Amino acid sequence: MPDVLIYDTTLRDGCQAEGIAFSVEDKLLVARRLDDFGVAYIEGGWPNPTSPKDREFFQRAADLEWSTAKLAAFGSTRRPGIAPEDDPQLQDLVASRAPVITIFGKSWDLHVTEILRTTRDENLRMIEDSVAWLKTQVAEVIFDAEHFFDGYRADAEYALECLRAAAHGGADCLVLCDTNGGMLPHQIHEIVTRSRAELATPLGIHCHNDAGTAVGNTLTAVIAGCTQVQGTMNGYGERTGNANLCTIIPNLELKLGVQCLLPGKLSELTSVSHYVSEIANVMPDHRAPYVGHSSFAHKGGMHVNAVMKDPSSFEHVPPETVGNERRILVSDYSGSSTIQGKLRQLWPNLDRNDPIVAEVLNRVKELENEGYQFEAAEGSLQLLARRLRGELENPFDLHGYRVSVLKADEKSEPYSEATVKVSIGDREVHTAADGDGPVNALDNALRKALTELFPRLQQVQLVDYKVRVLTADEGTATKVRVLIETTDGQETWGTVGVHANIIEASWQALVDAIVFGLLRNGD
Amino acid sequence: MPDVLIYDTTLRDGCQAEGIAFSVEDKLLVARRLDDFGVAYIEGGWPNPTSPKDREFFQRAADLEWSTAKLAAFGSTRRPGIAPEDDPQLQDLVASRAPVITIFGKSWDLHVTEILRTTRDENLRMIEDSVAWLKTQVAEVIFDAEHFFDGYRADAEYALECLRAAAHGGADCLVLCDTNGGMLPHQIHEIVTRSRAELATPLGIHCHNDAGTAVGNTLTAVIAGCTQVQGTMNGYGERTGNANLCTIIPNLELKLGVQCLLPGKLSELTSVSHYVSEIANVMPDHRAPYVGHSSFAHKGGMHVNAVMKDPSSFEHVPPETVGNERRILVSDYSGSSTIQGKLRQLWPNLDRNDPIVAEVLNRVKELENEGYQFEAAEGSLQLLARRLRGELENPFDLHGYRVSVLKADEKSEPYSEATVKVSIGDREVHTAADGDGPVNALDNALRKALTELFPRLQQVQLVDYKVRVLTADEGTATKVRVLIETTDGQETWGTVGVHANIIEASWQALVDAIVFGLLRNGD
Repeated sequence: MPDVLIYDTTLRDGCQAEGIAFSVEDKLLVARRLDDFGVAYIEGGWPNPTSPKDREFFQRAADLEWSTAKLAAFGSTRRPGIAPEDDPQLQDLVASRAPVITIFGKSWDLHVTEILRTTRDENLRMIEDSVAWLKTQVAEVIFDAEHFFDGYRADAEYALECLRAAAHGGADCLVLCDTNGGMLPHQIHEIVTRSRAELATPLGIHCHNDAGTAVGNTLTAVIAGCTQVQGTMNGYGERTGNANLCTIIPNLELKLGVQCLLPGKLSELTSVSHYVSEIANVMPDHRAPYVGHSSFAHKGGMHVNAVMKDPSSFEHVPPETVGNERRILVSDYSGSSTIQGKLRQLWPNLDRNDPIVAEVLNRVKELENEGYQFEAAEGSLQLLARRLRGELENPFDLHGYRVSVLKADEKSEPYSEATVKVSIGDREVHTAADGDGPVNALDNALRKALTELFPRLQQVQLVDYKVRVLTADEGTATKVRVLIETTDGQETWGTVGVHANIIEASWQALVDAIVFGLLRNGD
Repeated sequence: MPDVLIYDTTLRDGCQAEGIAFSVEDKLLVARRLDDFGVAYIEGGWPNPTSPKDREFFQRAADLEWSTAKLAAFGSTRRPGIAPEDDPQLQDLVASRAPVITIFGKSWDLHVTEILRTTRDENLRMIEDSVAWLKTQVAEVIFDAEHFFDGYRADAEYALECLRAAAHGGADCLVLCDTNGGMLPHQIHEIVTRSRAELATPLGIHCHNDAGTAVGNTLTAVIAGCTQVQGTMNGYGERTGNANLCTIIPNLELKLGVQCLLPGKLSELTSVSHYVSEIANVMPDHRAPYVGHSSFAHKGGMHVNAVMKDPSSFEHVPPETVGNERRILVSDYSGSSTIQGKLRQLWPNLDRNDPIVAEVLNRVKELENEGYQFEAAEGSLQLLARRLRGELENPFDLHGYRVSVLKADEKSEPYSEATVKVSIGDREVHTAADGDGPVNALDNALRKALTELFPRLQQVQLVDYKVRVLTADEGTATKVRVLIETTDGQETWGTVGVHANIIEASWQALVDAIVFGLLRNGD
């Protein structure tokens, strides 16, 4: 039995996020992965008639085996003025066959009288007898006290009465919810401490991130006595999101020494986080604590130097404990240890005093002054280093290109076309293609020219294209920097081009992207 | 004098973020906006020989007037074994002419002996005499105690000794830094409380977000006695970022009743946040607390219903206090006061209930869904409103264009040429021009075609051109947004274009820019 029970609500509260909509299949995939990861509860949804997907999820999930997690169905207390056994919504919860039922109830007097439009006493009865009836139907009932913290600040005694009603009804856990997400850690500390003192039932915490403090609030609540933590993967949720379990779990395990997953599972954190974002079709946040692509990336020259001497000097935890990795970025601020770290990916035994380190560093600084930026363009950096060391033979020669965009009249869409001329050995290829815009046409034409001789290019495709106009510094012409990200399905690499002409800047980055892809494939 | 002094380090620590690199012009623009917003300090960078951009920034900034903020130059304590007045790095700080100098020093014994490789005593002397000498040169010296919290946990007495050394040297503020970003709120509370008790000098707090708690940690530190808060706009910074001032400032003002901006400025928060992300060319985080596009977006049907009954039921603060707006994701009818405010610039007596307000709002929302953005494109917004009201007659008709870029061989520079066909009344003009790149050629050709009949266009010129590639949302093709800034020497206006083809997006913005310029001039 872990010290803190993780209650994942990605599939219910997480779906309130703008832009997230899981299919039933998606939900089953996420639930399967979370079960394997070792969370204690998976809240699958609200199985009522207006959510047929959630109903189907529970019906299919009931027939599957779950190794660690218990599935929970979510709903609310009964309506005012009827018996719980006559409330179709409570009946739906039982019909879901979920072994755990979680219901929310009001604990803020404002909501009781203004939103629910019932009396304070009837609300207490609704909580107590809904919980009590559900306990005759399933083994475990959790009570979510909605708006508990706002309710406590408005009328502490009434908010505590709502918890007591659920406890009398036999609830297995009382979850204190900061539904509006506006609490700060010191308020959480005070209110949880008091609630802990007043009630014997286990307490849980459910935070939202509207004040940017959901993680700190959750940890504060655990320290003050909560033993169940509700949250979502990657913090998905309505408005600013729910408490982010991908941050909370490692904080609990690594910093507070609290066990909350199966042993050995924490190193899967980064991979589980990315898996869920993949299924949710949401771009991962590169600076997310613990799991972000930038979370262990070092840029400042002095920092890099210190990290190479002792990683704990600029890393709060070792990246491998959460399945992430250290990255050394190249920038204005970088020095020779940064470059050395990078070049070791290419030449693992490279000595710091090898002259190539200084040579690459000088060239990088010159190019940065011209507007290049290599931190998202490791492909271009590696090509540059290999060229400087005389290790790189170009797989093809470029001759020229022409790009044109024609808009024939005001109503028509513009037409983009490109021609390129390249040679491979003694064979010259001169071809043309069109595209959605001038850069896409150029990319299409270059690939078309090369794919016949390098069929592996079929796997290589452009996945991201960024443009930045560099502000003109006195006298210099304005320049454009293009960053391209390319993948072959296994690895992804960045390349860069800079020129006053956006087409030429794009061309440089496109050519580097393809050369890097060809060399990687061993052509 | 505000209760808490906001110390913005976007231009120094924020630049350690992956993907962020400000030009000198960018830095001056950001500093100007922050000064107007009302922060107390703006840390501009590290003016040493390896950062020529930061040096230039301080030289140019020293000759400008600053209304609220003091500029701070950043550096470190002197090197071991020399006198402070002989340390070129400290001399550079003084030469920057910044009225405030901030230096960091080590306060973690591990770093003193392992990274800096000096003795514990020499480190204390380095702190004290560096601060003392700088105090003979400038009015205000701030000491950043790097790794203070890790240092305190390793050896509390030594960490406090480092603070005392800076205090003896005459530091005006001692800033406690969680450099690795791994602290949790309860640790911050304990350590700040002890430090506050031990020292008489004002304390500051500088947090990083590696544990996802930078905001909560900062607020906890303020409650425990820190009166200076260091952070960055949008939380930009190395790894997971710095403490996010766009979250901290409203938490301090709205929740803790602490003043930290000039009165009335908090409602500019969302706009300042977006301005900085625009200049940094970083996509704004849609779920950022307070300023995110989703931060006051309501999706759940029950929530929407409750919010319509009483917004406080699901909103921790009113969105307008921070210049954001409520969005109802199903049926959106928000924002009419924003639009009304904008349209009053055109029609000063416009009534809120005038149907043109709703008409413009609907059209703007449609266009925003397609990727347009009008915050920096009021020229386009005004043209749109005048067209919808039937008040705008186009001064010329567009027929078409052709743009081409030719690179004849690998060594030669690309050649860009554009042709355009327009008519003014019954006169048709068909002409051509070349330029530095395709957009410049198009701009030149369009101007050439029009200047003969509209000679005032000679005063109108393009001053800024920005491109952003919009991330593809499910199924939709990737689009490009172009923002152009144009001036006639008296006024400056922004225009916008969006299209999958960058040339067409640029053409839209160029045409709007010229039409706006002609109408303004009364042609």
